[in-house]
Amino acid sequence: MSKIITIGRQFGSGGRAVGKKLAKELDISFYDNEIVDKVVADSDLHPDVVKSADERATDSLLYSLITGGGLRGVSDAMQYEMPINDKVFIKQTKVIKEFAAKGSGVFVGRCADYILEEQKGVLRVFIYADMETRIARVAEFDGITPQKAKERIVKKERQRKAYYNYYTDKAWGSMQSYDLCINTTRTGIDGAVDIIKDFLEKKG
Amino acid sequence: MSKIITIGRQFGSGGRAVGKKLAKELDISFYDNEIVDKVVADSDLHPDVVKSADERATDSLLYSLITGGGLRGVSDAMQYEMPINDKVFIKQTKVIKEFAAKGSGVFVGRCADYILEEQKGVLRVFIYADMETRIARVAEFDGITPQKAKERIVKKERQRKAYYNYYTDKAWGSMQSYDLCINTTRTGIDGAVDIIKDFLEKKG
Repeated sequence: MSKIITIGRQFGSGGRAVGKKLAKELDISFYDNEIVDKVVADSDLHPDVVKSADERATDSLLYSLITGGGLRGVSDAMQYEMPINDKVFIKQTKVIKEFAAKGSGVFVGRCADYILEEQKGVLRVFIYADMETRIARVAEFDGITPQKAKERIVKKERQRKAYYNYYTDKAWGSMQSYDLCINTTRTGIDGAVDIIKDFLEKKG
Repeated sequence: MSKIITIGRQFGSGGRAVGKKLAKELDISFYDNEIVDKVVADSDLHPDVVKSADERATDSLLYSLITGGGLRGVSDAMQYEMPINDKVFIKQTKVIKEFAAKGSGVFVGRCADYILEEQKGVLRVFIYADMETRIARVAEFDGITPQKAKERIVKKERQRKAYYNYYTDKAWGSMQSYDLCINTTRTGIDGAVDIIKDFLEKKG
């Protein structure tokens, strides 16, 4: 049976690193930005547009400004066009399902836990860490000050949460939405990988 | 080095069963109602009083009614007596620290993760489960209808959350308060025990 592991993650917690190492050790596919690349390859949308909409919910104010909102009146109702972020979400949904149908894989972010929830045996993991660990990680990775790192974390997290809560009926970062939640401040990246691997070996 | 594992748990999730089995397999002490029994043995409080205050925060309204609150005026300020639930919490804190000083052990509930947080190497686990699993478990265990089971879960959970949030500076059931959160709907009791054991073996 194919193994599907979805990984939600706090920004700076090392969730991507956990997923990548896990996929390598299990010798299965890894999907993170690969999801975005496939959407770009399959669609007529500009790569920059797809990337800017990745894991960001539709901004209703921006959308309203672009389409003219109610300003131009009811006669414009027929001109309704789906917001670009919704289009990208729908295309990502399709891509994620196609990838999952190919066999075992690790999916990072993009509401994959929700998109694949009807598939049997999906293991839904969430990776998080204490704020100090995340600040240190982001500061080092991006070569920025701890203050700047914290600002990035708060901003990115607000976006991810809004994205998840907008497109799913679940709550991002609330344990009830997942099967296993691991704090990498305590476990480290390798420890988190071990926990997931051990569990998959025993319970599949 | 001694191993201390604290287990927070949703009511009906099997957290106690996980803790008990884990302690048995690791051959270390298990503390759940044992904490309450020790408080009773060590204090001059009536056993019923200690039990009714176990994992329940001080009810400020009740306290105010018992002590007379502001009704009898400022002159009563000297008659202030510490609420019974606060007394029990303080005694439980002492007992938990004494038990932890004796060596390895599994502690269920009672804010043990917070009380022992300065002790090095404590693993803070939270056990939860989907509502349906918890209802089925409580209904079977207590021999009551699913409807009654759900009512018990909601009530007990409100108490545990209020207790934890009142006596600690952390949020009960929020993953950020723990190192590892396990959904027993997916893992089962044995699976949860395995995950914790595997982790302890590798990382201590």
